Amino acid sequence: MQVEILTIGDELLLGQVVDTNSAWMGAMLAKEGFRVQGITSIGDDAKTILDTLGRLMDNVDIVLITGGLGPTNDDITLQTLADFFGSKLVFDASVYADIERMFPGRPNMNALNRDQAMVPKDAIVIHNKVGTAPITWFESEGKVVVSMPGVPAEMKQVMTDEIIPRLKKRFKVPSIQHRHALVHGVGESSLAIQLKEWEGALPSFIKLAYLPQVGLVRLRLTGSLPNKTILTKSLDEAVDKLVPLLGNSLLALEDITPAEVIDRLCKQKKISLSVAESCTGGYIAHLITSQAGSSVYFKGGVVAYDNAVKCDVLNVQEKDLIKSGAVSQTVVEQMARGVRELLHTDVAVATSGIAGPTGGTDEKPVGTVWIAVATSSQVISRLFQFGTFRDRNITRASLEALAMIKEVLDQGDIISSRR
Amino acid sequence: MQVEILTIGDELLLGQVVDTNSAWMGAMLAKEGFRVQGITSIGDDAKTILDTLGRLMDNVDIVLITGGLGPTNDDITLQTLADFFGSKLVFDASVYADIERMFPGRPNMNALNRDQAMVPKDAIVIHNKVGTAPITWFESEGKVVVSMPGVPAEMKQVMTDEIIPRLKKRFKVPSIQHRHALVHGVGESSLAIQLKEWEGALPSFIKLAYLPQVGLVRLRLTGSLPNKTILTKSLDEAVDKLVPLLGNSLLALEDITPAEVIDRLCKQKKISLSVAESCTGGYIAHLITSQAGSSVYFKGGVVAYDNAVKCDVLNVQEKDLIKSGAVSQTVVEQMARGVRELLHTDVAVATSGIAGPTGGTDEKPVGTVWIAVATSSQVISRLFQFGTFRDRNITRASLEALAMIKEVLDQGDIISSRR
Repeated sequence: MQVEILTIGDELLLGQVVDTNSAWMGAMLAKEGFRVQGITSIGDDAKTILDTLGRLMDNVDIVLITGGLGPTNDDITLQTLADFFGSKLVFDASVYADIERMFPGRPNMNALNRDQAMVPKDAIVIHNKVGTAPITWFESEGKVVVSMPGVPAEMKQVMTDEIIPRLKKRFKVPSIQHRHALVHGVGESSLAIQLKEWEGALPSFIKLAYLPQVGLVRLRLTGSLPNKTILTKSLDEAVDKLVPLLGNSLLALEDITPAEVIDRLCKQKKISLSVAESCTGGYIAHLITSQAGSSVYFKGGVVAYDNAVKCDVLNVQEKDLIKSGAVSQTVVEQMARGVRELLHTDVAVATSGIAGPTGGTDEKPVGTVWIAVATSSQVISRLFQFGTFRDRNITRASLEALAMIKEVLDQGDIISSRR
Repeated sequence: MQVEILTIGDELLLGQVVDTNSAWMGAMLAKEGFRVQGITSIGDDAKTILDTLGRLMDNVDIVLITGGLGPTNDDITLQTLADFFGSKLVFDASVYADIERMFPGRPNMNALNRDQAMVPKDAIVIHNKVGTAPITWFESEGKVVVSMPGVPAEMKQVMTDEIIPRLKKRFKVPSIQHRHALVHGVGESSLAIQLKEWEGALPSFIKLAYLPQVGLVRLRLTGSLPNKTILTKSLDEAVDKLVPLLGNSLLALEDITPAEVIDRLCKQKKISLSVAESCTGGYIAHLITSQAGSSVYFKGGVVAYDNAVKCDVLNVQEKDLIKSGAVSQTVVEQMARGVRELLHTDVAVATSGIAGPTGGTDEKPVGTVWIAVATSSQVISRLFQFGTFRDRNITRASLEALAMIKEVLDQGDIISSRR
C-alpha cells in the first residue's frame, strides 16, 4: 500500500522546526508493511494545500497529514480539507468535551479553543487522548486521507493506537516480522564487509537494513511471507548465524539503547554501579540516569576533569599521574578502583582521554581514550582510538564504557552487595 | 526569491534518517532573504526524480537538491540530472583529484570511486572540500538547480561557502539584518503575551520569530530595508526596549547556547566551577564539558544520585537529610557548599529534585527541583516546579542551573582564585 506524508506549517519551511514526524511515521509504516512514496512539507496556505492534496491523492492510496491544527488563525488545514471534500465544518460535542478536559482549571475557555471543536461534517472524528486538536479520517474514491496534529507526542499516540490498526483493517498488507541487533564499535562499512557472505545467503523474503548512529549500528531484519511459521523459523535461523559473526560487538538482540541494556542487567543481577569520568565529562552518568528507575542501581559518580580531582577525590597517585599522564592505563584503573571504593558499589567504570579538538600529542593524538571497569575481584582496561571530533569522541567513549560494563556483567562472577 | 528543497534517498522514506538538512537550509535561506516554498523527499528512482524536478522548476526560481550522490549503484541523481537537462556525464579531472585526496593511503581506489568523477557536461562543478561527491550547478531558462551531497557536514560547508554567496550574486535579495535573544524559564505562549505590546509596536519591516526548545525560547528579529543605517538603528532600538521586558529571563543577546554563555563568562572572569548533581544526573557537567576548552575553568563534579553519596562525599548532614528530605533547600545548599569545598572552586552549583516519572508525593510532586549556587561569600537557592516528563525535567533543571550560575557571575563580586 502506497502512502504519501504531507506536513503542513510555515515553521517547517523557515527551518524553525525539524520535521521528525515524517521519519518516525516512515519507519513505523515500513515496519507494518506500508510503503512511503514521498514526503512533502508546505506552508499554511489554502491554495497550496488544495493543489498538493489533489496531486498526492492521484499517486497513492493513503495520504497522512500532520500539522496546521492549532488554535490560531494561521492554522487552516481543517477548513481546507472540508473544502477539498465538498464538506463543511460543524460543531462536534465530543471534541469539545475533549478540549474542556484539557483546561480543567479554566471554565471559560476562549473562542479560539471552541473553534477547535469545529470539524468537517463528513469525516470520521478520532479521539485525541493527549491534546486539543481533533483527528479526522476522510474516505473518498477508495482512498484514505487522515489529518493529525503536528505535535509529535499527539501524532505518535494516535498513529500507534488508532491510525495504524485502522489502516491495517482497511487495506491488505503483507505479514511482516522483524529481528534486531544492536552493534557497537564497528563502522557501517566494515560491518557490511564482515556480514557480506551471511547477508548474501539470506532468503529473498528477508531484507537487511543498517541503521547507523555515532558509535552504533542497529541492524534490522525484515521478513515478509504469507506462511508465518516458515517466516519465524527463517528469521530465527538468520539471527542464530548472525550472533557468532558479531561476537563482542553485539550489545542486544532487541531494538533498545545501550543504557537500557545496562539498566536491565544491573536490575536483574542486583548490581550497583558508579562512574568516574574525565573525557566523557558526565555523559555516561547522563545516559544511565536518563533511564527511569536507574536510582535502584546507580549510586552516582565523579566527573574528574581536573587532575587534582583525580588525586584528591579518587585517590589516584600523583606520582603515577606525573609519570604516565592522565590518559594512561595506570591512572584510568586507579580512577575506576577509586570511585568504586568511594561510592561503595559492586562495579565502577572510568574514562580518561583526549576529546579534542586540542590537547593531542604525537604519542597520544586527539581521540585517544582509556576505559577501565573495576569489580571486587578485577580491573579490566582497554585503549581506544576514536576520531577528531569532540562530540563524537565523547559519545563513542561513553558507549564503549557501557559496552565494557556489559562485558564484565556477562562474565557473571560479580558478587552483588545489594539486598 | 522562491526556493524548493528536494531531498533524495530511500532512507528518508523508510525513516532510517531524519531529514535535518531541509530545516537547516530553510533557516539559512530565510536569514539571507530567500523564501522556501516547499520541501519534498523522494526515493532513488529516476522517473520520480524527473517528474518532481519538472514540477518544482515550474513553481520557483531555485531548486536545491541534496542526496543520492554516493558511490553505490542506487545513487542515480547525477545521471538523472544529466538526462533532465539533455546533457551527458563526462570525466572531470579536478573532481577525480578531490576524490584521490580523500583516499591518501589507497592508491588503487575502486571503480565506484572513479565513477564519482563523472559529472554532467553542461553543469558548473563546485569543489567539495570535505567529501568525494561533486557539487553541480545547472542554469536553464533563468532558473537554477543545484545538486549537493546529503551528508550534513558536506552540504553545510558548500551551502555556506559557495551556494549562498553565488545565489546572492545571481538573484537580487533584500538587505537583511538579524538580532537574537536567548530566553530561559518562560514558555512560548507566556512570553508572547508578555511581549505583545512591544511586538505590536515593531515597524512593519521587522519580523519577530519565536524558536522554542525545551526550557528555552530563542527570539529572532529579522529586519529588511534598503536603507541599512535606518535598519540598524531600528533593530537596535527594538532590542533596547526588549531587554528590560525580559529581565532575568534574558540569557544572551546572541545566537548561542546557555553553556556557551557560561563558558565565556567563566573564561572572561577567570572563575573556576564545579557541580553536584542529583536529579540532573550528570547532564549539567555534560553540557559544560561539551564546550571545547572547558577544562580551563571546569574542575569537575559529583553525581550524588544516592543519599549516601550526598553525605559521604559532599558532607551533607544526615540529620538534615532525614528531617527535610533530599529534595530540600537545606540539602541542596549543603551539596553546593560541599562540592565547592571538595573541588576547591570559586563557584559551585547543585541540583536535587524528582525527575520522575515516579517518586513524587503530594507535597513534592514529580518536577519539584531545588537548585543552589555557592560562592565564597554566599549561597543562593531556588525552588522550581517543572512538569511530568523525566527527560524534560532533566533538561529544564540543567538549563536553570546554568542560568543561576550566570546570575551569580553577573553580580560581579566573586573573587577568582585562578591565576
